[in-house]
Amino acid sequence: MEDQTRRRFIQKAAALSAAPFISTSVTRALARDSQKKLGWALCGLGSLSTNQIAPALLKTQHARLAGVVTDTPEKAKRWQQQYGIPAKSCYTYATMEKMAHDKNIDVVYIVTPNALHLEQTQRAAKAGKHVYCEKPMETSAERAQQMIDACKAADRKLGVAYRCRFEPNNLECVRIAREKELGALRIVEANFGFPIGDPNQWRLKRALSGGGALLDVGIYALQATRYLTGEEPISVFATETKTDPVKFAEVDESIVWTAKFPSGVVSSCSTSFAAAGMGNYLVHTERGWFGLEPAYVYSGIRGRRSDGKEINLPGIDQFAAEMDDFSRCILEADTSIVSGEEGLRDMKILMAIYESARSGKVVSLA
Amino acid sequence: MEDQTRRRFIQKAAALSAAPFISTSVTRALARDSQKKLGWALCGLGSLSTNQIAPALLKTQHARLAGVVTDTPEKAKRWQQQYGIPAKSCYTYATMEKMAHDKNIDVVYIVTPNALHLEQTQRAAKAGKHVYCEKPMETSAERAQQMIDACKAADRKLGVAYRCRFEPNNLECVRIAREKELGALRIVEANFGFPIGDPNQWRLKRALSGGGALLDVGIYALQATRYLTGEEPISVFATETKTDPVKFAEVDESIVWTAKFPSGVVSSCSTSFAAAGMGNYLVHTERGWFGLEPAYVYSGIRGRRSDGKEINLPGIDQFAAEMDDFSRCILEADTSIVSGEEGLRDMKILMAIYESARSGKVVSLA
Repeated sequence: MEDQTRRRFIQKAAALSAAPFISTSVTRALARDSQKKLGWALCGLGSLSTNQIAPALLKTQHARLAGVVTDTPEKAKRWQQQYGIPAKSCYTYATMEKMAHDKNIDVVYIVTPNALHLEQTQRAAKAGKHVYCEKPMETSAERAQQMIDACKAADRKLGVAYRCRFEPNNLECVRIAREKELGALRIVEANFGFPIGDPNQWRLKRALSGGGALLDVGIYALQATRYLTGEEPISVFATETKTDPVKFAEVDESIVWTAKFPSGVVSSCSTSFAAAGMGNYLVHTERGWFGLEPAYVYSGIRGRRSDGKEINLPGIDQFAAEMDDFSRCILEADTSIVSGEEGLRDMKILMAIYESARSGKVVSLA
Repeated sequence: MEDQTRRRFIQKAAALSAAPFISTSVTRALARDSQKKLGWALCGLGSLSTNQIAPALLKTQHARLAGVVTDTPEKAKRWQQQYGIPAKSCYTYATMEKMAHDKNIDVVYIVTPNALHLEQTQRAAKAGKHVYCEKPMETSAERAQQMIDACKAADRKLGVAYRCRFEPNNLECVRIAREKELGALRIVEANFGFPIGDPNQWRLKRALSGGGALLDVGIYALQATRYLTGEEPISVFATETKTDPVKFAEVDESIVWTAKFPSGVVSSCSTSFAAAGMGNYLVHTERGWFGLEPAYVYSGIRGRRSDGKEINLPGIDQFAAEMDDFSRCILEADTSIVSGEEGLRDMKILMAIYESARSGKVVSLA
């Protein structure tokens, strides 16, 4: 940043210091003034990268698509052409370390099967890059912890792609909860599931996924119970069921679980790879209820409240929002609300849910 | 029945024998021809009797209000005047046995606090009357069994007032489930609760109620999971939570539970005396979902399906329907779908839910 620019930035920051969203405002000023956009490299060019993340990077204020990591040469070539990525910023999984010399890239966004996250995080961090990673973080809490350790050792930031944390209707529900607008929370019901297609996909192979519906989409319902209550569960109990033991030979098909929170709130959640149209939450409070249906989709999230008021805020590109926020955290040396530590909290609870499903016993998280 | 009437009835029955709802049709013919309405006595003249059951008895085809049992003389007088009940058919709880000589009364409908059901059932049965009883049947499975035994010993029928079993929108959901119109069932979510008012009411006193939210309204959610799946749970797990230990010193405030069914369906349910606006169910299937919201109210029940079709059948007087059906069962010597045995099944599961909440362990029902 030039001195002239920095001075203007500091002046703007001072002028904005009474504004409610100071850090975002400051960042906007910063971005406008410095034209600074962090370079993001996408590691894994599957459908999420192709259809959601790359298009979102055309809208981001503080992030731009700067590189890719793929083992498929045709994909690398296609992405170079489509997004004007320099050939030198296209890597394979084996050559990721060479990114250390690529000043074009600041962040690596890992969008690969769960069991690959740790090694790729370690490589990116060693190359001096910040890491943003799809959820679930990894296949176990231990491996998630190692991701945190790797980034800490390299003094790089680690974030987990919980896009709903930036989505206006979800944030509105958090506000209703936090301000007790309908009274104290009592029971949170949340679910997420879908009938999974191709039986050969990585999500059904334990070695790559570490688990089934719970890790893939149940994690959204779990996150929702945590951000809605603002509390950490103290115990969980889970029941697993499997109607297709062939297709789901390696991973969980459907799980329902309940959790108890310190204030006395209880949650009741379900997830499935064999049921359609799941993806809602409903919060029962002292004086009413509120919730989203659907709660976790890319667009069209909306909700209802017992007092008849609508929850229907305009949608945003959640991928753009989360990448902008993580870029902002790097630029401002701020802590991300979706840090590795936050991801690890979920991993520990997810593993407790599996443990309970296996043992048939309540698992304490205290 | 006069010979002439009987002959006409038999002819009608023969003509109707190919009709899909033969027994109801036959009964209608029977009732029309014979003018036969069974005499019902209401035992307990609280708000449910006053506001729902007595008005319903003005619409019933096979039942009429024939007597009352109350310890409040003013109530007895008021009901005599309002409904033209003969003074001789007004009883107190202590004089119920005298009903034996009252040919005006065929059925006693028990609408009193749960812990009184057994004794009143025993008295009514001893007096030779059939018994219809509000749910939950009693405060324990053992006492519910004794109710069954008492009616069996007196060769009288026993029914439990599960009005939703006669409600068209609930029946439509059962049809969707049974015909697998949206595929096989996977996960059933059901809840029922309300913020209870007066802290001095009998529902909060264990000696009279035997339990709190679970027995009072959670039973609707439990019933729903059973009639929707058409299966009996093989195990349950429950978590109890209490945010107001003073008001709920004697009974449960909120409980969430999960249950596993033989086909692999799982249910996820909640009930509360401290949360508002609960009373829905949502069934996740292979290919979609369906459910009612609200599911258990007296009128205005409606629902939705994932394919966009409405569930919005015209409501009926559920109290009239259940009393007509129980009368029909008596007239035709048919078995009620809401028999004492059916009520006992719920009682056993409810007690298992309490046991699980206490022990923190899965309770097997196999």
